[in-house]
Amino acid sequence: MAPGLRTSPRAVVLLLSLLGLAAAGKLLVVPVDGSHWLSMQEVLDILGQKGHEVVVVAPEVTMHIKPSENFLMKRYSVPYTQEDLKQEFQAFFHFSFEQGSFLERFVKAYKGIKRITNFGVTSCQHLLQNKELMRYLEESKFDALLTDPVVLCGAILAQHLSLPAVYFLRGIPCGLDFEATQCPRPPSYVPRGFTQLTDHMSFLQRAKNLLHDIPDLFLCDFAFEPYSKLASEFLQREVTVQDLLRQASVWLLRSEFVLEYPRPLMPNIIPIGGLNCAHKELPQEFEAMVNASGEHGVVVFSLGSMVSEIPMKKAMEIAEALGTVPQTVLWRYTGKAPPNLPKNVKLVKWLPQNDLLAHPKTRAFITHGGSHGVYEGICNAVPMVLMPLFGDQMDNAKRVESRGAGLTLNILEMTSNDISTALKAVINDKKYKENIQRLSDLHLDRPIHPLDLAVHWVEFVMRHKGAPHLRPAAHDLNWVQYHSLDVIAFLAAVVLLAFFISFKCCLCCCRRCFCKKGRTRKAAKAKSH
Amino acid sequence: MAPGLRTSPRAVVLLLSLLGLAAAGKLLVVPVDGSHWLSMQEVLDILGQKGHEVVVVAPEVTMHIKPSENFLMKRYSVPYTQEDLKQEFQAFFHFSFEQGSFLERFVKAYKGIKRITNFGVTSCQHLLQNKELMRYLEESKFDALLTDPVVLCGAILAQHLSLPAVYFLRGIPCGLDFEATQCPRPPSYVPRGFTQLTDHMSFLQRAKNLLHDIPDLFLCDFAFEPYSKLASEFLQREVTVQDLLRQASVWLLRSEFVLEYPRPLMPNIIPIGGLNCAHKELPQEFEAMVNASGEHGVVVFSLGSMVSEIPMKKAMEIAEALGTVPQTVLWRYTGKAPPNLPKNVKLVKWLPQNDLLAHPKTRAFITHGGSHGVYEGICNAVPMVLMPLFGDQMDNAKRVESRGAGLTLNILEMTSNDISTALKAVINDKKYKENIQRLSDLHLDRPIHPLDLAVHWVEFVMRHKGAPHLRPAAHDLNWVQYHSLDVIAFLAAVVLLAFFISFKCCLCCCRRCFCKKGRTRKAAKAKSH
Repeated sequence: MAPGLRTSPRAVVLLLSLLGLAAAGKLLVVPVDGSHWLSMQEVLDILGQKGHEVVVVAPEVTMHIKPSENFLMKRYSVPYTQEDLKQEFQAFFHFSFEQGSFLERFVKAYKGIKRITNFGVTSCQHLLQNKELMRYLEESKFDALLTDPVVLCGAILAQHLSLPAVYFLRGIPCGLDFEATQCPRPPSYVPRGFTQLTDHMSFLQRAKNLLHDIPDLFLCDFAFEPYSKLASEFLQREVTVQDLLRQASVWLLRSEFVLEYPRPLMPNIIPIGGLNCAHKELPQEFEAMVNASGEHGVVVFSLGSMVSEIPMKKAMEIAEALGTVPQTVLWRYTGKAPPNLPKNVKLVKWLPQNDLLAHPKTRAFITHGGSHGVYEGICNAVPMVLMPLFGDQMDNAKRVESRGAGLTLNILEMTSNDISTALKAVINDKKYKENIQRLSDLHLDRPIHPLDLAVHWVEFVMRHKGAPHLRPAAHDLNWVQYHSLDVIAFLAAVVLLAFFISFKCCLCCCRRCFCKKGRTRKAAKAKSH
Repeated sequence: MAPGLRTSPRAVVLLLSLLGLAAAGKLLVVPVDGSHWLSMQEVLDILGQKGHEVVVVAPEVTMHIKPSENFLMKRYSVPYTQEDLKQEFQAFFHFSFEQGSFLERFVKAYKGIKRITNFGVTSCQHLLQNKELMRYLEESKFDALLTDPVVLCGAILAQHLSLPAVYFLRGIPCGLDFEATQCPRPPSYVPRGFTQLTDHMSFLQRAKNLLHDIPDLFLCDFAFEPYSKLASEFLQREVTVQDLLRQASVWLLRSEFVLEYPRPLMPNIIPIGGLNCAHKELPQEFEAMVNASGEHGVVVFSLGSMVSEIPMKKAMEIAEALGTVPQTVLWRYTGKAPPNLPKNVKLVKWLPQNDLLAHPKTRAFITHGGSHGVYEGICNAVPMVLMPLFGDQMDNAKRVESRGAGLTLNILEMTSNDISTALKAVINDKKYKENIQRLSDLHLDRPIHPLDLAVHWVEFVMRHKGAPHLRPAAHDLNWVQYHSLDVIAFLAAVVLLAFFISFKCCLCCCRRCFCKKGRTRKAAKAKSH
């Protein structure tokens, strides 16, 4: 058979869309701000370029969400300012650099997340109360809704508009995503989030991992319950967090198994980790900086799109360490320059991270371990020094380190010497480069680019109004039924009953025998008397 | 970002292979005969066309395995003839048409499978004892081994040659494939093989499904243990069936969720159901037959590649029924023509099934429900009348029927009238066509053709000498550890101990209090006396 005859329908759709003939769909997008927006935007750009009508609904006040020629932006007013938002996030991120006891840090994190959640809930309230915008959304005949379910506003809108939903996410804390997809996750080898455990655990680590599920039962309530309350009020019926999550047709998971530990997936969970690694040309100024670095090459240093300033003491420690390597260090930093900044360190307000990492002269990547950055490091095979700050970053760092592709530092405890030692190690010890190269080779050897895969599944849900054939029947069972506890109890009862009856019968038979014997003996005795 | 810049490594590999520059690999293939060979051959053809050196090892006596210009065939002698093999298989398939009690049929099936297994084991023994061929295999530096693990000879060879293995399969009875991949399958919604249950089960059906796992613990031993014995003897160490199965790097599963019920998958299980639906041009004689069918079109009728003769009584019943529809029926049949053969029925010794099903004049497909045929029916959106005979065919038929895309008949009990009614229903009742069209649309809307996906993963394992990043850590746990029973027992013991100590402390305190009181009272009493 000639391979040419194996024309996939997708190839046909692509061809048709190039010819402007494909049925273009209409997609409603409710994004989440911050780094969450960055990779989602890449998907929206392609969908827009393919001729779909993409409408993004976002508050007037945002950090990263910006218009593009590829989609229509619908803004709604919110009762807070850009400054309020910036201050709140900065306060939250600066907390990562503050020392304190576990309890102190826990309470601070709780309060910080609570305040950030409040921004989300307020924003969502204002969207749902915005009559003009809601009328527009109700009247527009959308084919599907795309949202990041870590903020549940899009999920409420999907329920209200009865739209099939595609969830685009890195994950949801407390295992809510596993519960919503009915995806098994045996605690014996699937490490829980924020535990920094790997898939190979000792007995006590397995115990810790199992116990970690208990607080998860209520710990995330404070961040998600407000949406359930909002949904119940708005939709005029009882709506739980799981109702909002469970509705999704397809879950586009920004995760992949060179980084994640292998675990079961459900058919409607599509791993698209590494979708953000497409290269553009390096801007001239950066090209010049890299070329000027000589034989030693460069180190790329960024703590992510959300953290570009750090406390001066920490900045000085880092600066001191960076001066100990012969590489030119490109550091994304918007704060006041540390006075001890060495000559080999160039501070920049922004850097084209992925394109810099792709440059053959890049020797190492100092990162906070955000998932985008880590996948860019893997794509481009650059060994990493990880300084995780919050969220999934500790787990990401642990994963990179457990693969021998980087070294993790504790941002609070690290000294200038630690940073220098770690940086020199990942640059000079060949094993780090070999390991990241192996991961990179595995990661890049895929039948389809994750960005195309994400676009395909959004289009799939738009074309077919969902993906009902991928929805497991487990959704129609309650907890007892799912775990077959009713069946096991019934079978146990049957077995016990059978045993009991057999036992009673035996007892009865024995008694009769003994009674007979007893009576015979008695009779014999009576006779002998 | 221009989509053109998103060049996937696969595109590069394809381009290089077209230019003859890609690193071609060397693949050893140990196929399974019968219908199992048909779709595997399609993968081998493409691998060969892409420049890989593909070596197929097969016994001299086979039914369907034939040489091709795309691979090298290495034959080895076996102590049975073509006639022996044909007779044994015919006897086995004819048993499907024989009435009898459950026990009689069970014993006959057991004996039939046992005899067929013996052919496989004998063949495998002769391969492993063939010194010349084994020396050739040992000296050839293969990159990977591809086999269907329903016969474990390839798995033994993979262990002996220390080759990473790709398993290509429809499934293995008794859930051995689930166990080997560590893939969860909750009995509450994942129906077991040969139960004809769907994913929506009543309480008693769930109980039946759960109980079905018990005989599975030993039922398949008679078919698989001989290979474990052979492996242990040949490899000079204890090798279990699970050792042979567990080694696979990637499992290419001929299954897909328009037909299968959604259930968890492991990352190294790649669903490639429907890979056998690539169209070729219809041979002229068949094109003429179809065109001559007029407005009513044709019905395609085949009981698969292994069954082309049936008992005369059954053939006459079927012939009678086929005469009641106005369509031309193309029936693959090599037996003696039934004397009542109606004019609208054309008997053919062979038919290009998929290409006929693809013809717009095809109205219905009468099939035994083999997985190849069912997927071809779905690809081409042809409603089906299913007459399952053995193996997974009953389950396949149930799945098609539960989707409203066909009707199932019991081959033993069906009357001429039943056949006629079912055939007329799937042809004339629009709902069958609508349902199969919906399944077909979902099935064909995929980001990559399953044949390309299969080829990709074989090449992946060849290029990377396995896929260790997809191997779940569950393989390193025993049953108790996997289910966290040791951790649960430990935690329960800790809790009980804590309760016990608290209880003892309370008891002690109470005693002291009461003793004091008692003593005080006693003292008071003594005083009052």
